[in-house]
Amino acid sequence: MSWNVYLSGEIHTNWREEIETAVEKAGLAVCFSAPVTNHLASDDCGVAILGAEDNKFWHDKKGADINAIRTRALIEKADVVVVRFGEKYKQWNAAFDAGYASALGKSLIIIHGAEHQHALKEVDAAALAVADRPEQVADILRYVIDSKLEGYT
Amino acid sequence: MSWNVYLSGEIHTNWREEIETAVEKAGLAVCFSAPVTNHLASDDCGVAILGAEDNKFWHDKKGADINAIRTRALIEKADVVVVRFGEKYKQWNAAFDAGYASALGKSLIIIHGAEHQHALKEVDAAALAVADRPEQVADILRYVIDSKLEGYT
Amino acid sequence: MSWNVYLSGEIHTNWREEIETAVEKAGLAVCFSAPVTNHLASDDCGVAILGAEDNKFWHDKKGADINAIRTRALIEKADVVVVRFGEKYKQWNAAFDAGYASALGKSLIIIHGAEHQHALKEVDAAALAVADRPEQVADILRYVIDSKLEGYT
Amino acid sequence: MSWNVYLSGEIHTNWREEIETAVEKAGLAVCFSAPVTNHLASDDCGVAILGAEDNKFWHDKKGADINAIRTRALIEKADVVVVRFGEKYKQWNAAFDAGYASALGKSLIIIHGAEHQHALKEVDAAALAVADRPEQVADILRYVIDSKLEGYT
Amino acid sequence: MSWNVYLSGEIHTNWREEIETAVEKAGLAVCFSAPVTNHLASDDCGVAILGAEDNKFWHDKKGADINAIRTRALIEKADVVVVRFGEKYKQWNAAFDAGYASALGKSLIIIHGAEHQHALKEVDAAALAVADRPEQVADILRYVIDSKLEGYT
Amino acid sequence: MSWNVYLSGEIHTNWREEIETAVEKAGLAVCFSAPVTNHLASDDCGVAILGAEDNKFWHDKKGADINAIRTRALIEKADVVVVRFGEKYKQWNAAFDAGYASALGKSLIIIHGAEHQHALKEVDAAALAVADRPEQVADILRYVIDSKLEGYT
Amino acid sequence: MSWNVYLSGEIHTNWREEIETAVEKAGLAVCFSAPVTNHLASDDCGVAILGAEDNKFWHDKKGADINAIRTRALIEKADVVVVRFGEKYKQWNAAFDAGYASALGKSLIIIHGAEHQHALKEVDAAALAVADRPEQVADILRYVIDSKLEGYT
Amino acid sequence: MSWNVYLSGEIHTNWREEIETAVEKAGLAVCFSAPVTNHLASDDCGVAILGAEDNKFWHDKKGADINAIRTRALIEKADVVVVRFGEKYKQWNAAFDAGYASALGKSLIIIHGAEHQHALKEVDAAALAVADRPEQVADILRYVIDSKLEGYT
Repeated sequence: MSWNVYLSGEIHTNWREEIETAVEKAGLAVCFSAPVTNHLASDDCGVAILGAEDNKFWHDKKGADINAIRTRALIEKADVVVVRFGEKYKQWNAAFDAGYASALGKSLIIIHGAEHQHALKEVDAAALAVADRPEQVADILRYVIDSKLEGYT
Repeated sequence: MSWNVYLSGEIHTNWREEIETAVEKAGLAVCFSAPVTNHLASDDCGVAILGAEDNKFWHDKKGADINAIRTRALIEKADVVVVRFGEKYKQWNAAFDAGYASALGKSLIIIHGAEHQHALKEVDAAALAVADRPEQVADILRYVIDSKLEGYT
Repeated sequence: MSWNVYLSGEIHTNWREEIETAVEKAGLAVCFSAPVTNHLASDDCGVAILGAEDNKFWHDKKGADINAIRTRALIEKADVVVVRFGEKYKQWNAAFDAGYASALGKSLIIIHGAEHQHALKEVDAAALAVADRPEQVADILRYVIDSKLEGYT
Repeated sequence: MSWNVYLSGEIHTNWREEIETAVEKAGLAVCFSAPVTNHLASDDCGVAILGAEDNKFWHDKKGADINAIRTRALIEKADVVVVRFGEKYKQWNAAFDAGYASALGKSLIIIHGAEHQHALKEVDAAALAVADRPEQVADILRYVIDSKLEGYT
Repeated sequence: MSWNVYLSGEIHTNWREEIETAVEKAGLAVCFSAPVTNHLASDDCGVAILGAEDNKFWHDKKGADINAIRTRALIEKADVVVVRFGEKYKQWNAAFDAGYASALGKSLIIIHGAEHQHALKEVDAAALAVADRPEQVADILRYVIDSKLEGYT
Repeated sequence: MSWNVYLSGEIHTNWREEIETAVEKAGLAVCFSAPVTNHLASDDCGVAILGAEDNKFWHDKKGADINAIRTRALIEKADVVVVRFGEKYKQWNAAFDAGYASALGKSLIIIHGAEHQHALKEVDAAALAVADRPEQVADILRYVIDSKLEGYT
Repeated sequence: MSWNVYLSGEIHTNWREEIETAVEKAGLAVCFSAPVTNHLASDDCGVAILGAEDNKFWHDKKGADINAIRTRALIEKADVVVVRFGEKYKQWNAAFDAGYASALGKSLIIIHGAEHQHALKEVDAAALAVADRPEQVADILRYVIDSKLEGYT
Repeated sequence: MSWNVYLSGEIHTNWREEIETAVEKAGLAVCFSAPVTNHLASDDCGVAILGAEDNKFWHDKKGADINAIRTRALIEKADVVVVRFGEKYKQWNAAFDAGYASALGKSLIIIHGAEHQHALKEVDAAALAVADRPEQVADILRYVIDSKLEGYT
């Protein structure tokens, strides 16, 4: 069995590459997916393809809808959905993805720093693991997929 | 048919009462529900009932899980889920609820001020209506349930 | 058991009242529902409640989304969905409702005149009954709900 | 991940080939499918295989049911359903497919000219993108599947 | 909680009344339902309401489709589906109902005489109880709904 | 896309081979499946593997349950379920399979001779095609999968 | 909204009455249900109604299947499933119910003493609350349904 | 078609290898999966990856949640779930898995010795086969997948 893992949330650090590299090194059969992480393209895709809008609300609506074609399909195919909350911004789309994945019965892993612990309590409570560093997610995947846990043989 | 409407999100203003009063005045058959809006009780319910925790993470986990018993049941029974984002705080639980309701195919109505327009674009895009004032939600319910639209007879 | 019957489609004749009157006379426990049949209100509800739009596309989008709150909820609760195609207009929303109801596994009854027979063949094929007059729907409901068929005792 | 895209609707222009060629050129992993686009075969398949009917209604019914074996299976497997409304004909089967796909939670993309804007407002409202030219669909697929947006690197 | 029990199958003896009388006497909150048991009406309902057919196949098709409006709705609402196979006839509709109910996860109770034991083995195997007399079904309902079992207090 | 087609029902003629040969000759990507067609093995598999039973009812139950492991899995994976009713025997398992497949939303094709027309009317009504010869099923599959209809080019 | 709460598990103490009395005193709209708690009746219901069996395995099978008619229906209707593990016996049916309810997405509350903590870790992990005394369940229901938490006003 | 078979339960004997070896020798297309069977790793995975806990309850919770990522995904993908109850321990997780798989409609096979017959009656009743030796499971798979039954040709 090959596992599908969707990496949602924060797009300003290279946490996705960290996980993917570690998982690849471990030789696991994982197919990673993610939202479009080019911030400008993600904001403008709707109007760039379907035509400009005067009103920012509809500019954003057109973009968000096209992004949803990707996002929904990938979350629905995922076995595990990882959501990382960064230090900055509102990141409501990350929390939305977590709720969406949770209602679909996906296994959720949340990554965030200690500063967000209380504010994310409902999101964390819906997760099967709450990590603070990306490499922990790689460790979880290695254990879950390959039964490997460092120090236990 | 009686409609079930769940009012999620911001708990620091009386927006729920505004909607409920307007709907009641219009004589609509609506059964409103909401999360526990007593902030302290909501934070402490887990440890108050099931025993104290040293670690704030588990203190919060216990509470969030008990709140989820209420929240999940009410969202699942709702025909319409209204989520209001206030001016302050992270409000990730509100966005989580919106994602959860969306994945269940519920009709979403989002309320927020203009300052959050861009940050909420993915949440708004999943909604069937985006309002900035609670009375608009009452107007929507009156139209949707009772076919009444002011000025149209 | 009370039956929920949704009456979709053409809004320019009184076919809904015909069915409802006949069913009421027969004393059946049926709860009828329908889209908002006030054409102007249905077109303008979005902008009337949520604010005007310069672009007709968004004017219509806002209205159609609010109407969908009503339509989706009522179709999902229906045991039987009746869709009538009238003589004029494109009536794509009627065909959309038929497809929507069909995918949800609802029992479909279609009403249309002979002139539309070939053009509606895919819609008719998804239905459990194809009638050309509203009173036939009342007869079907009387038989289906109350086991009564004129001339058979 | 390979994407399944179903191309429903108008069969008198070569819009399907336009999209497929553009997508192929972009090297995307897309598996396209469509209804049988041979109009005569589509009309007669039922009686040709299962025997003639005197009544046109049953002639059409037999054909539509066999076409439904194909159509339903392909829509259910699709990640994205594209529906194009042409200039002529009633095209109720296209609207039916859109409703069917929508109820299954598929991502809908609608293509139509400006002349149909108001008549298709409920169908458009259920879509994640409304285009007027086939090449826009190819652009959307390139963005959604491959994160490529012209002018954004 | 009130229980919905659908009584499918053989229509030539009064087994439904036997069960209903016994259950009523026991004071259980059961809502019974059944197909239309007027054999002639059941055969002719399609053509009587929607117009005659020359071909017996379509005569039967129209009737069976209208009966399906009733049958499917009632089976879907049922908590328990009881199917009785009588001594005569093919009774393929009874077996079809059993399969249909089974796929929906309904609790099946089958009633038949010893002569059908081997021929019904797949149907029986899908059931939670196989009885040979109607009063056993009443006993099961009394036990299941009211915790009453004769001789055990 | 490869199609999964389950061939249920009569096991005393070589109709399965007829269909498979014709489909293979047509070069279609179809994966056929069927129940175990060794009658004796099918009857005895339960006791042969899990131990003998004195009572024929439990002998049959054990066998039917093991056969159900195969049958349910294959029907659930099927895109199309073909059920053939032969001339002899009760064949209630065939009708049960048809009902089971129908409730799962599978496309049903029924094959039977004219003598069973009335007795199978409910089963036929649930089907998308009713054939009387196996080669018609092959023709349907060629049309549905490959858009090929003899005489239409 | 009235809540359905299913009380599964241990039948040798009066823990169900404790919860029901406390909930009634609090005036909550809860409809409680439970398995048949008459141990002997529960063991013998199958053979008492459907006829004796020589083999204990089939004696038990017949009873367990009839009990499942009750158990499955009530768990499926429940909003909350409470499972209490007592001090003695294997209680595999309690763990089975917990797994069954969990897969259906029900909110689980588990009650057990400290001695079972490690052995029940997978069951506890699937729950939204783990209590050691029945009155805690009443407290949870009062909070969840009525927003009341002792000491918080 | 390749079959997915999940082997749940007892981890102290080599019963999984027995089944796998026999199935491999028979040349069947089966993809086996199982929980992590390294007992220590399974107990400690949570704290080893996500950080230590003072309280054994949370130590176990963290581990059980991570194990659930694996377990749930594999059970959901399985066509057949085999659960073996050994001679010792509470094995509540095995019964939980059986209930979970049953609610998802998976085909269950239970293996246990005669000493557990009465205590497992509800679990056995939900199964399609109850075996006492692992080789019987291999025989069932050979019959179900490959139509092979020793002594029947």
